[in-house]
Amino acid sequence: MVEFLDVKPVDEARRALLAGWFAQAGRPPRLLCVEDADLSSALGRVLARDVVSPEDVPADRRSTVDGFAVAARDTFGASEALPAMLEVIQDIAMGRMPEKAQGPGQASRIPTGGVLPGGADTCVMVEHAELLDDGTVLVERPSSPGENVVQRGEDVARGETVLGAGRVLSPFDIGALASIGVSSVPVVARPRVAVISTGDEIVPPGTAPCPSQVRDINNYSLSASVRRLGAEPVALGIAEDTYPALRLLVEKGLEQADMVAVSGGSSVGARDVAVKVFSDLGPPGVLVHGVAVKPGKPVILGVCRGKPVFGLPGHPVSALTAFDLFVRYALNVMVASAVRKAPADPALVAALSSSQETWVDARLSRSVSSAPGREDHVRVRLVRKAGELVADPVLGKSSLISIMVDSDGEMVVPSESEGLIEGTRVQVRILRG
Amino acid sequence: MVEFLDVKPVDEARRALLAGWFAQAGRPPRLLCVEDADLSSALGRVLARDVVSPEDVPADRRSTVDGFAVAARDTFGASEALPAMLEVIQDIAMGRMPEKAQGPGQASRIPTGGVLPGGADTCVMVEHAELLDDGTVLVERPSSPGENVVQRGEDVARGETVLGAGRVLSPFDIGALASIGVSSVPVVARPRVAVISTGDEIVPPGTAPCPSQVRDINNYSLSASVRRLGAEPVALGIAEDTYPALRLLVEKGLEQADMVAVSGGSSVGARDVAVKVFSDLGPPGVLVHGVAVKPGKPVILGVCRGKPVFGLPGHPVSALTAFDLFVRYALNVMVASAVRKAPADPALVAALSSSQETWVDARLSRSVSSAPGREDHVRVRLVRKAGELVADPVLGKSSLISIMVDSDGEMVVPSESEGLIEGTRVQVRILRG
Repeated sequence: MVEFLDVKPVDEARRALLAGWFAQAGRPPRLLCVEDADLSSALGRVLARDVVSPEDVPADRRSTVDGFAVAARDTFGASEALPAMLEVIQDIAMGRMPEKAQGPGQASRIPTGGVLPGGADTCVMVEHAELLDDGTVLVERPSSPGENVVQRGEDVARGETVLGAGRVLSPFDIGALASIGVSSVPVVARPRVAVISTGDEIVPPGTAPCPSQVRDINNYSLSASVRRLGAEPVALGIAEDTYPALRLLVEKGLEQADMVAVSGGSSVGARDVAVKVFSDLGPPGVLVHGVAVKPGKPVILGVCRGKPVFGLPGHPVSALTAFDLFVRYALNVMVASAVRKAPADPALVAALSSSQETWVDARLSRSVSSAPGREDHVRVRLVRKAGELVADPVLGKSSLISIMVDSDGEMVVPSESEGLIEGTRVQVRILRG
Repeated sequence: MVEFLDVKPVDEARRALLAGWFAQAGRPPRLLCVEDADLSSALGRVLARDVVSPEDVPADRRSTVDGFAVAARDTFGASEALPAMLEVIQDIAMGRMPEKAQGPGQASRIPTGGVLPGGADTCVMVEHAELLDDGTVLVERPSSPGENVVQRGEDVARGETVLGAGRVLSPFDIGALASIGVSSVPVVARPRVAVISTGDEIVPPGTAPCPSQVRDINNYSLSASVRRLGAEPVALGIAEDTYPALRLLVEKGLEQADMVAVSGGSSVGARDVAVKVFSDLGPPGVLVHGVAVKPGKPVILGVCRGKPVFGLPGHPVSALTAFDLFVRYALNVMVASAVRKAPADPALVAALSSSQETWVDARLSRSVSSAPGREDHVRVRLVRKAGELVADPVLGKSSLISIMVDSDGEMVVPSESEGLIEGTRVQVRILRG
């Protein structure tokens, strides 16, 4: 068993990747283009620039009730016993400007959302008014200036920032953009990630493997993870555990994609092949070999031809953990670099990352041990017991498929800890939903 | 102001919709087709049938360590002082079957994942063995039968259900399917939802509105919400507030989609037009007019030509709340009806719904009042204060855009409550992420 002489903590490994990458890409790097997205296809895209409202919303004073637009001074002292009697001069229609301004002692019938006529500064709800005839209304209580009225620009003023760069657009955001008349927005181009599986024992899922072979899981689960993050997978298939076979696919990946993720093989020899391929395609080639994390220790991070390359473990659960820690991080860095705010600002990277993550508090159902100096990522099932959320670790040497299928989230045993005792409150990152 | 004479609680309104719908569609209704999805495009789709493993995983006994495959009885009593000396007869390669079975006193070199040869029942880690020469190994501690070995079918046995019908497929699920050799799965067809905006004051986002007009927000935000739920929006644009205009678009929607959602207009007259159109396209036409929920009271639920139709409020935030309560519910019912398990089983509908939802516990930052008999849906911002999650209600008559843009989630003040006091623990449904 080869020991890794230079096993780095997660954050140090990320810093080493970033330093090597930016040295090649220039500073500040612009790693992705910005493109325009039509509002109907902008859902889930990352906004590249702040969006500033080109206009006041609403564009004019509007009523928030069905009733009558009046001047507040005409209603002072009004009561049911002594109502103010006003002349109704017009019906204001939705979507139309009032036909005329009103003078003292006059009122206009107005629907919710209708525009106030000149001379009116408040609206009386229909419940507090009584129509004597078509031309006369009795107002039964005083209404103060601005009551039941939205002022021009009160919702959003012209020039106000409505959505900040870096935001992942939700249905609500799409609605807000429509409301200020923005029908196309600058978004960050989708990064492309080449996905390669290696291992002499790996066969495609369509093939019937002999008992000594296993099917290619990682090409599918990693491609789906790439897609879920809003990036484009470039699935390049399986490479034999030989230098020429792997080099060919990695070079293809560097041509077609923005980064390359190789998973497996599980043997030491296969890792050596990946290290040699990455080194030869440098500089700088391999930057990190071995990370103090479980599962996923034998991770390789490097930069070839200015693009990040990853050697992930062959075990599917370990591959997905390492993907989340490093490939996802690199994707966020790329996206952040294209966001006009603070290029590759760590806070922005974190924000982009957390905007796609949900964390919940839960109580640990049983003790979990760990080695100090190593960050342990543990898959858990979430169950509600007595009104409380409980995190139940999913363990077992043989439970590859059940770990994949039954876990709801992941918790981290920090690197300085020797483990967590039953009942500890932990933060769980949701893996589904 | 027209009062709704028959305002129903949310669950009663849903039951009335379901009863009217199923009376038209037959029982048990099959409201959507099942289609096959290739594994590479199955992410986020809903599984229509249970997936049963066609084979044992692993297909043969495998080592979980790098080391030597041996017979446990040959290592009994072994120690560093008195190691067992075994003959190494072969190297087992990854992806290959062992060349031969081994006899008493024999061992095979084996990598992690390698298949055990006949005659071996345990594996010794390389750390606990010492190679004397190419043909001889010293084993320094006893190894019991099955130690460091995964048995055939131990992860998943042939015939075992790996994923249950109704599941929304995640990257992990895709990986699990690949591992059992399933390259295409039966999924529920995506339901189509026609989206129509009404209102004489509504103009398309690309148009410059005059101050009395507003842009069409709902077409965009509702279409994006439909897409986010994995369904297909059919955006039909804006209908004037007249019977012929609305009827034309609703009929178009009934032809092209599985359900029709009309939003707005904000005036009483516009609602009357929608009620008349739905009634004339029945039976049964309108089933519910008015729901005891805020925002969103003036909701219309109906069934025309066997398909659900919805009249949603015109206000964008109210429209989205009503969408979540009713359109989303109907989508889940449709999907559940196509899942071969329990057609339109309420539990399955709830499961489908919750698989796309994340709820968090939070403490309410300030008191919120409510009317008993009405379910209030309140948008909140989530902030972490002193290590605790705090839900801060987003309120304000004029804050349409800020409510849309700044809220992280939604909490419900139950119908029997008169409000919630500051400090209450509430459940918040996450709206982003």
